[in-house]
Amino acid sequence: MVNADRLFPADPATRDIARELYAEVKDLPIISPHGHVPVEWFHDKDYHFANPTELFITPDHYVTRIMHSQGVDLKDLGVGQKNFTEEQSKHAFELLGKYWYAYVGTPMQYWFDDELSTVFGIDKPFGPDTAGEIYDEINDDLKQPEFSTRALVKKFNIEFISTTDDTLDDLHLHDETNADPDFPARLAPAFRPDLYLEPYKTANWAHEVEKLGEVAGIDATTYAGFTEALRRRRVYFKEHGAVLSDHSHADVRTDRLSDTEVNRLFKQAMAGNITPEEGDKLRRHFFADQVEMAQEDGLVMTVHPHVHRDYDPQNLAQYGVNIGADIPAKAEYAVDLKSLLNKYGNNPDFHFVAFTMDETVYSRELGPLAGFYPSLYVGAPWWFLDSPEPILRYFDYITTAAGFTKLSGFIDDTRALCSIPTRHDTNRRLTARFVSGLVADHRLSLEDGKKVMRDSVQSGPRHVFKLD
Amino acid sequence: MVNADRLFPADPATRDIARELYAEVKDLPIISPHGHVPVEWFHDKDYHFANPTELFITPDHYVTRIMHSQGVDLKDLGVGQKNFTEEQSKHAFELLGKYWYAYVGTPMQYWFDDELSTVFGIDKPFGPDTAGEIYDEINDDLKQPEFSTRALVKKFNIEFISTTDDTLDDLHLHDETNADPDFPARLAPAFRPDLYLEPYKTANWAHEVEKLGEVAGIDATTYAGFTEALRRRRVYFKEHGAVLSDHSHADVRTDRLSDTEVNRLFKQAMAGNITPEEGDKLRRHFFADQVEMAQEDGLVMTVHPHVHRDYDPQNLAQYGVNIGADIPAKAEYAVDLKSLLNKYGNNPDFHFVAFTMDETVYSRELGPLAGFYPSLYVGAPWWFLDSPEPILRYFDYITTAAGFTKLSGFIDDTRALCSIPTRHDTNRRLTARFVSGLVADHRLSLEDGKKVMRDSVQSGPRHVFKLD
Amino acid sequence: MVNADRLFPADPATRDIARELYAEVKDLPIISPHGHVPVEWFHDKDYHFANPTELFITPDHYVTRIMHSQGVDLKDLGVGQKNFTEEQSKHAFELLGKYWYAYVGTPMQYWFDDELSTVFGIDKPFGPDTAGEIYDEINDDLKQPEFSTRALVKKFNIEFISTTDDTLDDLHLHDETNADPDFPARLAPAFRPDLYLEPYKTANWAHEVEKLGEVAGIDATTYAGFTEALRRRRVYFKEHGAVLSDHSHADVRTDRLSDTEVNRLFKQAMAGNITPEEGDKLRRHFFADQVEMAQEDGLVMTVHPHVHRDYDPQNLAQYGVNIGADIPAKAEYAVDLKSLLNKYGNNPDFHFVAFTMDETVYSRELGPLAGFYPSLYVGAPWWFLDSPEPILRYFDYITTAAGFTKLSGFIDDTRALCSIPTRHDTNRRLTARFVSGLVADHRLSLEDGKKVMRDSVQSGPRHVFKLD
Repeated sequence: MVNADRLFPADPATRDIARELYAEVKDLPIISPHGHVPVEWFHDKDYHFANPTELFITPDHYVTRIMHSQGVDLKDLGVGQKNFTEEQSKHAFELLGKYWYAYVGTPMQYWFDDELSTVFGIDKPFGPDTAGEIYDEINDDLKQPEFSTRALVKKFNIEFISTTDDTLDDLHLHDETNADPDFPARLAPAFRPDLYLEPYKTANWAHEVEKLGEVAGIDATTYAGFTEALRRRRVYFKEHGAVLSDHSHADVRTDRLSDTEVNRLFKQAMAGNITPEEGDKLRRHFFADQVEMAQEDGLVMTVHPHVHRDYDPQNLAQYGVNIGADIPAKAEYAVDLKSLLNKYGNNPDFHFVAFTMDETVYSRELGPLAGFYPSLYVGAPWWFLDSPEPILRYFDYITTAAGFTKLSGFIDDTRALCSIPTRHDTNRRLTARFVSGLVADHRLSLEDGKKVMRDSVQSGPRHVFKLD
Repeated sequence: MVNADRLFPADPATRDIARELYAEVKDLPIISPHGHVPVEWFHDKDYHFANPTELFITPDHYVTRIMHSQGVDLKDLGVGQKNFTEEQSKHAFELLGKYWYAYVGTPMQYWFDDELSTVFGIDKPFGPDTAGEIYDEINDDLKQPEFSTRALVKKFNIEFISTTDDTLDDLHLHDETNADPDFPARLAPAFRPDLYLEPYKTANWAHEVEKLGEVAGIDATTYAGFTEALRRRRVYFKEHGAVLSDHSHADVRTDRLSDTEVNRLFKQAMAGNITPEEGDKLRRHFFADQVEMAQEDGLVMTVHPHVHRDYDPQNLAQYGVNIGADIPAKAEYAVDLKSLLNKYGNNPDFHFVAFTMDETVYSRELGPLAGFYPSLYVGAPWWFLDSPEPILRYFDYITTAAGFTKLSGFIDDTRALCSIPTRHDTNRRLTARFVSGLVADHRLSLEDGKKVMRDSVQSGPRHVFKLD
Repeated sequence: MVNADRLFPADPATRDIARELYAEVKDLPIISPHGHVPVEWFHDKDYHFANPTELFITPDHYVTRIMHSQGVDLKDLGVGQKNFTEEQSKHAFELLGKYWYAYVGTPMQYWFDDELSTVFGIDKPFGPDTAGEIYDEINDDLKQPEFSTRALVKKFNIEFISTTDDTLDDLHLHDETNADPDFPARLAPAFRPDLYLEPYKTANWAHEVEKLGEVAGIDATTYAGFTEALRRRRVYFKEHGAVLSDHSHADVRTDRLSDTEVNRLFKQAMAGNITPEEGDKLRRHFFADQVEMAQEDGLVMTVHPHVHRDYDPQNLAQYGVNIGADIPAKAEYAVDLKSLLNKYGNNPDFHFVAFTMDETVYSRELGPLAGFYPSLYVGAPWWFLDSPEPILRYFDYITTAAGFTKLSGFIDDTRALCSIPTRHDTNRRLTARFVSGLVADHRLSLEDGKKVMRDSVQSGPRHVFKLD
């Protein structure tokens, strides 16, 4: 069985403090403002995972990348495979057992052990010898009514959860799910217009823009129409429960073009006739437009920039995106955000949440900026950083400069449903660990520490993501 | 009451070591080689702070920036306000109480709690409910003779303190203060010629140069005269007690121009006719001149480079400089210091103290360089880094490469008088914490640890800043 | 006497775990896949160090740089001196005693104390008062049979050790040493072709290329011949026991030139007529060739890039290379390795071990890349980072992203023979310290922790460096 004190500090007195702090939040419901679980899992009244591999391996690039690093072919894990058979699924799970030792020290190991124990009640050690039988046990469980996705959402005590959706989605699945009194949480879509903002990178961009216009009910083939169409879709998403727009580009610059230039480049882009540099110029201008729209419609902006997406073209060609080969790039926030912050940073009603995988910007840029600008919040550790050591470093780097009120609260950002409670619990334990250190240092009273804990999982994210 | 063991390690055995180490330095006098307290506070035989807000909030951008990040307008804190009334001051202090929770985890919270307790004997928790009464208590105290600035300097056991001064200042206030047997410390001015070295950035630079010439008694409107004028001012400052010149530019390059080019650009600059790039070229040449002058006059050089000064133009326009919106920039030391170090780095009589807010240069550049070059010292954690976690990281990153003898010793760099003993005490406690870890690791004997402690507050800074 | 628990965690329960973990590896033999000890020390059946200064100071730039930072002239330490007398040697050793305090907090202090105690049985504290007598004691010891280098190799339990050799070396000393049943370890040469790959930087490059051709038995003065010559030398080294090629350039780019361009530039280079930029182009092309050759001959590639070699020209001119003035440069891995990894990163038989002194790439680039690509391994902390705090940070930054199986295992990279067992022991203790934290966190079972320990010193490096 997983230990009740896992991830707490080793020093006994500090551990006692951490226990008390953790007890404040252990059973509080989960707020998940950003993630990638498909809405269908929630809409379907009785959705069950086909098998343990569909649940734990194939869709979770956190898991598949480590096996890939050991020389396993992604196709053997079901990645990009149609008609992956039951036999193949079991084999994939056994591969996980075989290579389990490669996960030592990674959060995937911790999460998986935790999920086996807390969700499936399996406490025997996972590994090459037990993977097969554990597959069978979970497989049986998954057939049971208490393992439908909705039952899991209830069991996991999820209060709010956001998907990430196609900009043109009519969101009727969200509406129907929320209208269903049987669905135990509040479900929100999220607005993610990346492809429209990248005229150079997006394949057949002009066609995408035309479809956007059709859905938005306006001719989007001019810059003015395009902008209005995106504005309408933002409002549509907001009316259907969205609280945020999410953005992931190579940088966060918001340089505006002149009217003449933007119209000229837009036309060229529609004709499929722009350079990469012109694509960047348009994207930065379009992104600036999103920032302006946020002043009006009030959607929170979350940004996940500075990534080498699809670093590996071989695997991309064979298996597609999201295979674990999105590699962090150097981040640049202070220089690139300047014009945005100079214009809107002092507006407390504008919420801009900045994520990074480049830890060097924590103490040099994001902490100092968030400790000055009311609109700026520092996003929780993302992707490779959603791990015990990096989470502790995040607190270490940022709180002295910006305190706790300018943190986003935990973001699981996952498509692995069973990992959601584990990831949130991991973060709660680590928050307790960090805060217990402040209490042990006599920098904070235990009472204030408890308030920091509660706020970190409830009023904090409620405020940042405007949930009330 | 603040806890006697605050900031010490949690592990009981290590904490015992830290206690012993700290005891070595707890009561040693304070050496403050660089800071921003106005000389008038010391010159006036009976200067009293007008009220707690003038003491703790208005002039301290560490404090005001956090409230600003919560949406408070700087003018409500007295920033840039003439005739800030007693009522407004009390309201500002109550705002601090109201937003006190936003300071959790920041050093400002720790310092303030510490100052309330150790300076004013106030041990009730500060917060929204107590801010008003605490204001009144402090306000009463501040009227008392034992709360004149001079009485505080004595109480704080300050042995040496440096102000930062106008290059043209005749320093008679320093002279008179030092001549007064009643003043309990040694008071030094510091030479800070930044504006003269930035012909592009400085408004009305030619006029400033003319004034420089008048004070220096030489026509400074040619490059040769300008250089001689600065040389004379350096010597003047040294004769009046200065131990260092302080510099803060975008970079630390020392590229020299040819005689022809420097004379040509100087003329253009006097005519107000240079580009930003030409301004940078002149500034690097002028900075190289400062380095050469230091070889002769022996003033220590301290550099605080790589900052986006006045990042927020809105607030700058309304409230001026030093409002907490100086944001760290990426640092570059190894490349940019090469020509300087190649020329003068092997001269042990030349002391160059490099500060940074970009922690990435600690282990990559400053530690290795200070561990080779006799002239290079690594400045104490600065501005956003003057906090418990960053101070521990500073030791962690640098001492393995450069040991303890190449550290500057603590620099408070503040205009907040009451925070000076607290900041130094914080650093002494954290030094004890770090060194106790080395002793607990059996890497260092307790006796050597005690010597490291004592030297870190006495012979270390005395040597680095040539105080003897 | 050095403490049995040195470097273990302070918390008693965690320390107990660390003790158990360390016990697993304490007595396991040493694998040293990369270092700089001269082969002559091993070939000679009865090589003895001339005196303690030759053993501990003169050839060890880790030691000399700290004294240099205190103003000591390198010549007084024997650096670059022929006919350094016994008297001068003793004086150098006394200087080490005099400046011993400057080493506090550095690994050099820890290693030296450890070596004195464990190799020479000297347990009195080293320092200004004892340096002279300790010199004499060691000097006596060094004459004894049990202090021949071979006896030390045996005492140190070194199982595998690699030197770093001239590309044209016929390696007969290695062959003879390995053939000698009296030599207690496996001795490998390493292929280091840097100078041939740097046509601009290498003095008299054309002449070096001609000599390469002579040794390789082929006209190397054309690009085709040059490439074939290097290929032959790689194979020659492999046949004589080499397991790796080692490379240290300003970057790790592998941009290929067209056939026409490479032939044209090669000719120009042979004529001594290329620009620095052309030199870089050729070097990147040549480096790409090395990568291709590795696909065929299977030599592991280790890279030590991004260094300002010989930062200090004054000392370089007087004392030559390797004097402690190789300063870390900013690293760039994700961008620069892309083409290499896209081509060969998915080949599990290709082993590429990336070292760095820029810790910012650990969590941002190397961890994520090693956690995806089978061919990529993260090299142990190098040069300034081979220290307790940086080693702990290395585990902290990388293992959550890449686990333990993608680490290189410890690399001592030294020419200081007596420091080899101490450095390996230091790393074993610190690995135990880090892993004990995972066990204490309940993230890892003690049994798995023990396996991580054993693998980190045996099967890990055996796999990475293809020793079996």
